Amino acid sequence: MRTEISTLGEFGLIDHLTKNIKLTQPTTKKGVGDDAAVIDNSGKRTLVTTDLLLEGIHFDLTYAPLKHLGYKAAVVNFSDIYAMNGKPQQITVSLGISKRFSVEDMEEFYAGILLACEIYGVDLVGGDTTSSLTGFSISITCIGVADEEKIVYRNGAKDTDLIFVSGDLGAAYMGLQLLEREKSVFAGKVDFQPDFSGKEYILERQLKPEARKDIVQFLAEHEIVPTAMIDVSDGLSSDIIHICKQSNAGCRIFEERLPIDYQTAVMAETFNMNVTTVALNGGEDYELLFTVPLSFHEKMAAISGVHLVGHITKPEDGYYLVTRDGQEMELKAQGWNPIK
Amino acid sequence: MRTEISTLGEFGLIDHLTKNIKLTQPTTKKGVGDDAAVIDNSGKRTLVTTDLLLEGIHFDLTYAPLKHLGYKAAVVNFSDIYAMNGKPQQITVSLGISKRFSVEDMEEFYAGILLACEIYGVDLVGGDTTSSLTGFSISITCIGVADEEKIVYRNGAKDTDLIFVSGDLGAAYMGLQLLEREKSVFAGKVDFQPDFSGKEYILERQLKPEARKDIVQFLAEHEIVPTAMIDVSDGLSSDIIHICKQSNAGCRIFEERLPIDYQTAVMAETFNMNVTTVALNGGEDYELLFTVPLSFHEKMAAISGVHLVGHITKPEDGYYLVTRDGQEMELKAQGWNPIK
Repeated sequence: MRTEISTLGEFGLIDHLTKNIKLTQPTTKKGVGDDAAVIDNSGKRTLVTTDLLLEGIHFDLTYAPLKHLGYKAAVVNFSDIYAMNGKPQQITVSLGISKRFSVEDMEEFYAGILLACEIYGVDLVGGDTTSSLTGFSISITCIGVADEEKIVYRNGAKDTDLIFVSGDLGAAYMGLQLLEREKSVFAGKVDFQPDFSGKEYILERQLKPEARKDIVQFLAEHEIVPTAMIDVSDGLSSDIIHICKQSNAGCRIFEERLPIDYQTAVMAETFNMNVTTVALNGGEDYELLFTVPLSFHEKMAAISGVHLVGHITKPEDGYYLVTRDGQEMELKAQGWNPIK
Repeated sequence: MRTEISTLGEFGLIDHLTKNIKLTQPTTKKGVGDDAAVIDNSGKRTLVTTDLLLEGIHFDLTYAPLKHLGYKAAVVNFSDIYAMNGKPQQITVSLGISKRFSVEDMEEFYAGILLACEIYGVDLVGGDTTSSLTGFSISITCIGVADEEKIVYRNGAKDTDLIFVSGDLGAAYMGLQLLEREKSVFAGKVDFQPDFSGKEYILERQLKPEARKDIVQFLAEHEIVPTAMIDVSDGLSSDIIHICKQSNAGCRIFEERLPIDYQTAVMAETFNMNVTTVALNGGEDYELLFTVPLSFHEKMAAISGVHLVGHITKPEDGYYLVTRDGQEMELKAQGWNPIK
């Protein structure tokens, strides 16, 4: 018997493989199913998250400079720790390296990792280095810390909670589209030097994203603990559904409230794409998507850089986008999914 | 400028890339350079280790059943935590999966991981699953715990300390040689069913190794804290040199004392290999190699399954094997090295 993995998809496969896992260690407070695992350490909590990035699937070295790639690989893991309302402290970096790469290449990559570590205050503490028969493989694990009572899971959203997202959405995806187009236009040409002026923002969002440490700090300063939080890696649509499913809730997202940068909108038009679809499903935004009680409405005004995009409903109300003309369209978890 | 990675080798590359790492987090007690990193958690210590295993480099699915592979991938990480005198508690498992694999294949692999978790009392708490354009990639991170004062690093070996190793050496390597030979004999044949009777031990050592939880428990019961410890993954020769270099010491290993199983010896003869070389450089034994003060000589007699193989010397005495006829041969870190 052979069941193709594509019949389950990434999330389906993970659910299928992990559904029978029994947790036996008293120190394990949260296993599979959130942005990070949570481990008890006498009051404080250790958070653990990990990512595997493979050449040709997650990155294309034709246009991703190795230093940026190192930076991004580290930052996306920090982002998972922030999404638990934690503080990243250590990472391990494992690399599978093919013969194509030189010591100088690895220096570049490491420089990017170490720059991210410096900026975010994280220590690189270990890893593994091995040869690879094929491309470049990167596996990063990040260890963070949080106070027990401040950890934010995906499962705490309640009916009438407000839904906020930081920054703007869809830019990283449009940056990727632009890079892919230029790559095919310049295919085979040695001097690959397209003109990217005026498009710096979307390229930076794709190639060198930042994690929202600042938002986590703002929330702490204003003594706001969200009821649920996730980082937007698969797209707002997919990620709000993660929150709703785990919280046994529904949601309404308002199209007119989706934060979209000017460059994203222009590029979507150039590519003849619906900018709302891009914002909902583009992915790789690494913004924080979180819910707070309705009563926090005033308090949230003090937090800059976040946008109210909708509210949580009862589970039977489903997951819907309310369009500009008042129609309701069902949200789908069709985000960026490397297992197709 | 392009420097081939092969000019540095695995250890050289790691040293090169990590030499400028600055540790800034007060909770980081040990970074790169031991079996695991060490993180402070109010008295207790969190240990973190990680491994990246790539198809065609670390395993060959022609003869490694997926369930065994899952078991081994987990166990080799537990082994790193035991080598710090710690207790593994949680793992994360990241997989890169190509289209060749079915859901049933992944169930098999996971069954092996979960069996190892059950036997060793470890929780699987997270991971990442992605598609791969090429083979099967496995990245596992293990989190462990230890008392601050009981952690054993690689750098504490002192002149006159005794060197012990658990179990026996070289069997996993001979198992690999046997599997490789049968693979080439049966190349292209559909019914790949070689006769392995009488060779079960070396095959099991290669395909389904165990970590020496029992030795760590024995040591604790007898209140013995080694001065230095490492697990034998690259081969005794390479691994005792790691201890010596980090401890600023030399060593003498006695050929006649190397623990070698009967099947290992027979298979080495069949392959016309020097069994001492196999025991020193085979690798993947996952035995514990450790040093204790000379005064513990009597006390160590109570620990079953460990063998006195030599002693630590002053650094200027170098690293040598004392052969059966009393000659001294320099030990070389020529162990199993996936970056060639």
